[in-house]
Amino acid sequence: MSARKITILGATGSVGRSTLDLVERNPDRFTVLVLTAARDVAGLAAAARRVGAQRAVIADETRLEPLREALAGSGIDAAAGEEAVVEAAAAGADWTMAAIVGTAGLRPAMAAIRTGGILALANKESLVSAGSLMMHAARDHGAQILPVDSEHNAVFQCLNHSGIAAVERIILTASGGPFLRRTTDEMRHVTPEQAVAHPNWSMGAKISVDSATLMNKGLELIEAFHLFGVDERTLDVVVHPESIVHSMVEYRDGSILAQLGPADMRVPIAYALAWPERIRTPSRLDLLAIGALHFEKPDVQRFPALALAREALRSGAAKPAILNAANEIAVASFLDKRIGFLDIVSVVHELLETFDPPAPYDLDAVFDVDREARRRAAEIVERLCR
Amino acid sequence: MSARKITILGATGSVGRSTLDLVERNPDRFTVLVLTAARDVAGLAAAARRVGAQRAVIADETRLEPLREALAGSGIDAAAGEEAVVEAAAAGADWTMAAIVGTAGLRPAMAAIRTGGILALANKESLVSAGSLMMHAARDHGAQILPVDSEHNAVFQCLNHSGIAAVERIILTASGGPFLRRTTDEMRHVTPEQAVAHPNWSMGAKISVDSATLMNKGLELIEAFHLFGVDERTLDVVVHPESIVHSMVEYRDGSILAQLGPADMRVPIAYALAWPERIRTPSRLDLLAIGALHFEKPDVQRFPALALAREALRSGAAKPAILNAANEIAVASFLDKRIGFLDIVSVVHELLETFDPPAPYDLDAVFDVDREARRRAAEIVERLCR
Repeated sequence: MSARKITILGATGSVGRSTLDLVERNPDRFTVLVLTAARDVAGLAAAARRVGAQRAVIADETRLEPLREALAGSGIDAAAGEEAVVEAAAAGADWTMAAIVGTAGLRPAMAAIRTGGILALANKESLVSAGSLMMHAARDHGAQILPVDSEHNAVFQCLNHSGIAAVERIILTASGGPFLRRTTDEMRHVTPEQAVAHPNWSMGAKISVDSATLMNKGLELIEAFHLFGVDERTLDVVVHPESIVHSMVEYRDGSILAQLGPADMRVPIAYALAWPERIRTPSRLDLLAIGALHFEKPDVQRFPALALAREALRSGAAKPAILNAANEIAVASFLDKRIGFLDIVSVVHELLETFDPPAPYDLDAVFDVDREARRRAAEIVERLCR
Repeated sequence: MSARKITILGATGSVGRSTLDLVERNPDRFTVLVLTAARDVAGLAAAARRVGAQRAVIADETRLEPLREALAGSGIDAAAGEEAVVEAAAAGADWTMAAIVGTAGLRPAMAAIRTGGILALANKESLVSAGSLMMHAARDHGAQILPVDSEHNAVFQCLNHSGIAAVERIILTASGGPFLRRTTDEMRHVTPEQAVAHPNWSMGAKISVDSATLMNKGLELIEAFHLFGVDERTLDVVVHPESIVHSMVEYRDGSILAQLGPADMRVPIAYALAWPERIRTPSRLDLLAIGALHFEKPDVQRFPALALAREALRSGAAKPAILNAANEIAVASFLDKRIGFLDIVSVVHELLETFDPPAPYDLDAVFDVDREARRRAAEIVERLCR
């Protein structure tokens, strides 16, 4: 294939760096248009020089000068500000990695979709909060969304030529997190340090806590609903402590296809990067060394986040966006040791019960819901702290 | 889709009956052209009436009259003899199931391939003995061969749009058979009754013994080599005692795709029958009830058949056909309690070392090699019995 023109939104984070690693291993396949970062000027400039990017954009407006200095003599354009990030996303890459964390990634991702190219989506919040808007935009503009999350990437790989109509069940696997064998009473007193110690993946603190509550899997149910356009009842979750089978698809003829791989984000990223072809990565799974794979039913009594997310998905409208916003506030409060581990789900639950705005009809409405949900979630946290 | 015109070669055996079960569950999708059977007149006639076949063919020439009587008043044509079976295969079905066991299935399968339709291949011997001839014929006539064996069907399902060039490893799973935990010394004295007690599948005696020696997996290596057109070194075998993962494909990006399913041949048959669509079957896998899947390295010291088959594949020419013929004679002699379990592989090994005819250039040459190999294998058996 001729070189694919790519843009990486969020080039200095974990997914961005893994993407760059693969681009550097396959220099003939990719031409880098734009790299963006939130605040890491040094990391951004170094990456842009290594891959010969045409432009580097720093979201923090105050860092334009340091970026210009860091790029001096390289011939690489420098830009800064949120608007410059959105412009970068709209600059016409064949392929865009959307790896900006949080709601900040929503507008750039949508701008990339509107160009009609391929969007590799690593930003969870965007589909949870604005899934219908994004999928509609993708259809309208002929954009292809490729999931980068290991679970959804696995499902995407298992959805081969048979098509979604033949699918009976999409089975997302969950590691079960660090508290898989703890009772509810034991979980009452776990510390942030215990919660972020994920057994299989090394991840940020927020997503590690989401793994511990199983809210992460709840958010993924919502993502899968949008990505694959299936009925909520088609979506299932199975606990698989080894995190080797990243997800499965069951077909109506009784066949189940599964994707397995090592705990290395470069594998799903490589799939998205080269799709529909495949490029080489250095990551290999040693199934014989692992020896055994286990599967069990998730315990929704001990992990109510899963049921809560499913309920939000069923209710639709603004509920998934509220779930996501409340969870972010609650997890941050837990990490700050202001509330307990079990309080995370209580905060989300209470906000879902008490806040019921209409379905957001555009991105601004999504941001309004998000802002108000965070404000109200913070109030619930305050009340719990008293 | 419009109704697919199908022919089932070997309609009264296990695979044939499973195929008919699926056809009867989906009457609108299939029109049955011809059903054939070796000797079971009653079973053939009953099946032909149930599915409204146009013609029924019995391979045993002496049974034409009984077949005519059994079909009286049905309007279904009756025919008999080996030639009539070959004619049936050439009668222009869109889709043909090749489920005649042994070398008797070779000529009809080749006749079906020459019509340029879809051939669902359940006959192992044909690819092992005449793989190059069949695959060349398929290419020349534009026929599509779909594997029905659960392992190869699994691989076929996992080879999605990425194509064979991106495949790094094809991993066939083996149950390990009933003697997985026996020492060589313990295997010396096992009886045919012990050998045919397969832990997961209920199968015929011959294939059950092949599972116990692992020769079955060796034959499957050779089949996979022809079906998927890969280098022998791409093919790997992993022992998986639960027989839930039917096989896997490892891609160069580190992803492994696996197909899982219950121990019910209707699942791979349904896939072949509806390909590229999927039809409903009543078979479902309960992964939670199974709970754990194990994987280990096969022990080629205790199961030398695997190494022997690989060596025959590497040597090429007539060696795979000799391996297959010698194994059939040796297994039959073991089932007759004329030789011991470990002698099976010894007979095959000795014949491979002492018989080296040129590569067969057509089907007649394959039959010549097969006949001579059986004669010589029988001699080796006689010598062992003395």
